[in-house]
Amino acid sequence: MTTPSVRLAVIPGDGIGPEVVSEGLKVLSAVGPQHGLQLETTTYDLGARRWHETGQTLTDETEKQLSEHDAILLGAVGDPSVPSGVLERGLLLRLRFAFAHYVNLRPVRLYPGVSTPLGDTSPEDVDMLVVREGTEGPYAGAGGVLRKGTAHEIATQDSVNTRFGVERVVRYAFERAQERPRKKLTLVHKDNVLTYAGELWQRVVREIGASYPEVSVDYLHVDAATMFFVSDPQRFDVVVTDNLFGDILTDLGAAIAGGIGLAASGNVNPPREFPSMFEPVHGSAPDIAGRGIADPTATILSVALLLEHLGVQAAARQVEEAVSADLQVRAKENSQRSTSQIGDDIVARATESG
Amino acid sequence: MTTPSVRLAVIPGDGIGPEVVSEGLKVLSAVGPQHGLQLETTTYDLGARRWHETGQTLTDETEKQLSEHDAILLGAVGDPSVPSGVLERGLLLRLRFAFAHYVNLRPVRLYPGVSTPLGDTSPEDVDMLVVREGTEGPYAGAGGVLRKGTAHEIATQDSVNTRFGVERVVRYAFERAQERPRKKLTLVHKDNVLTYAGELWQRVVREIGASYPEVSVDYLHVDAATMFFVSDPQRFDVVVTDNLFGDILTDLGAAIAGGIGLAASGNVNPPREFPSMFEPVHGSAPDIAGRGIADPTATILSVALLLEHLGVQAAARQVEEAVSADLQVRAKENSQRSTSQIGDDIVARATESG
Ligand SMILES: CC(C)[C@H](C(=O)O)[C@@H](O)C(=O)O
Ligand SMILES: CC(C)[C@H](C(=O)O)[C@@H](O)C(=O)O
Repeated sequence: MTTPSVRLAVIPGDGIGPEVVSEGLKVLSAVGPQHGLQLETTTYDLGARRWHETGQTLTDETEKQLSEHDAILLGAVGDPSVPSGVLERGLLLRLRFAFAHYVNLRPVRLYPGVSTPLGDTSPEDVDMLVVREGTEGPYAGAGGVLRKGTAHEIATQDSVNTRFGVERVVRYAFERAQERPRKKLTLVHKDNVLTYAGELWQRVVREIGASYPEVSVDYLHVDAATMFFVSDPQRFDVVVTDNLFGDILTDLGAAIAGGIGLAASGNVNPPREFPSMFEPVHGSAPDIAGRGIADPTATILSVALLLEHLGVQAAARQVEEAVSADLQVRAKENSQRSTSQIGDDIVARATESG
Repeated sequence: MTTPSVRLAVIPGDGIGPEVVSEGLKVLSAVGPQHGLQLETTTYDLGARRWHETGQTLTDETEKQLSEHDAILLGAVGDPSVPSGVLERGLLLRLRFAFAHYVNLRPVRLYPGVSTPLGDTSPEDVDMLVVREGTEGPYAGAGGVLRKGTAHEIATQDSVNTRFGVERVVRYAFERAQERPRKKLTLVHKDNVLTYAGELWQRVVREIGASYPEVSVDYLHVDAATMFFVSDPQRFDVVVTDNLFGDILTDLGAAIAGGIGLAASGNVNPPREFPSMFEPVHGSAPDIAGRGIADPTATILSVALLLEHLGVQAAARQVEEAVSADLQVRAKENSQRSTSQIGDDIVARATESG
């Protein structure tokens, strides 16, 4: 099997970003070629350091260059020295919006051997796929401030939801639900309070759902959903939800599935009009940066999502299985391996099985 | 000690509402008089049944009558037969807004003997007070729909945040933090994405905080906060947050503290310009209504919050301690008591200690 060469843009970013990204690339370049995947990587220096040096988050020129790639691998961006929102809005969300990453894909899986804060929960109880909308909702950036600094100040923040935007992510979620054994889709929203947006989501799920008669559909208010994430995670198979609820639920999902060090994500443009971007859910963790102790697992699992997106399912499974085996060994050995040792060990497992 | 007679409006509501409210009243009328509290109750028939019969959620006349009370005790309103949002916006939120319930007070406490889905967590780890804003934010009801039913449909949902509204709830939260042993306040928001509203919340916390030098202040993004609720609940003492984040976090809080059957809340107007309203966090649970098996504990704990609000701290403690003792017995006996038996048992404990 031969797959054409893949142009991958790499954004290592700040803090532990570069450390975990290099393990991700290590795995990718070990496993990819076994499946005929040729990689051409270009590294982009973006993030807090760049912003401090140049005042730039993302130039139009860089955005254009990124757009000419097949996919992007991102470590983490951000640092306490940068005002909140600058890199988020100027870089991360800008990329998600510019490249129509309308599916923010976040699997929540408890791997065997991984400890969860939930007492009576075992791996088969936690296996869901959260499909978070990625390009609109409360993330639109709409809103403003009136009479700032006075007693009469008002700040608004507007959630923008379009039929177009909701429909495309809901359709994707049904497709994913359809191909899973349980074929269950749960819409999470808060339609009893956010009545305009909620009614649109409900109606779109109903309408699209008519074409997926095998998929059973459920609805939960976001407050109830957080409760069930911890009290009854078995309840969930595929979850589809808005940008902000998805942000909250997937961090909660990460917490119940062993922590943010294991949570992978893909910012996906399913029609492939733009490069999709894969990144660990965690941040740049400046407190542990540069010490070679960051856990690269979330990045490596994000590489598995990247491989899946590139159509090399077998390679994706190989990486996931290597991670899964590695996690089981960790549970037993309790040894403190370095970032790069974990990468090496996963590479060894992934390639021997390949 | 004599306290003037209290005019209490009672809204039993739908489903299990009437069942749990009568246990709450049982406790109130047993404990109150021991502290010189005289009660005059008036019952209001509001909720799903009323809406089906009359098409009304809350008339101006009823709102006016309610406003002439000192406090309101509410069971639960709602039924699947009523379209989502009708009773929420027309009754519950209308009361919270009309009566300026800007503090939505939700203690999250794990009582000894109560089982939590968190494995390694004991009662001393979970003892927080969530101060949720109750009158604005994404709950404002602002927004609209354009081109409904077409491919170009847009639904917006606007969060409205005022200096006035944020300041009053933040000040209240600092007051509460100041009087607790740990004196810690955590602001939860999402200021890296919801930049307009988030900056206002941050600035107000900074400004008000200057008058509370003993209170240590922390900030968490809402996604991180949900993670820490399950992985490190000890981290939290008082939490102050916006209406929607508070809704989500307190259901999660209920889940980690033994379930929604135990979660109490107060919709409080601290300056007492309007009656405050006390209600269990759970809903009307129509599936178990009328069978005498609903757990009245959340309502009874809401009565404790009511007593506290009325200024009879000792009575509030007495109820809480009776509940606490009852919960410890439940853990051991595992007997299935009826709703009213639980009420009777708590009354017996509360009055013997009084
Ligand atoms: C950094 C931030 C903008 C981002 C988000 O809110 O989407 C992050 O929390 C995530 O979940 O990827
Ligand atoms: C019923 C609903 C409007 C309400 C809310 O969202 O505030 C409920 O979930 C609560 O937490 O009291």
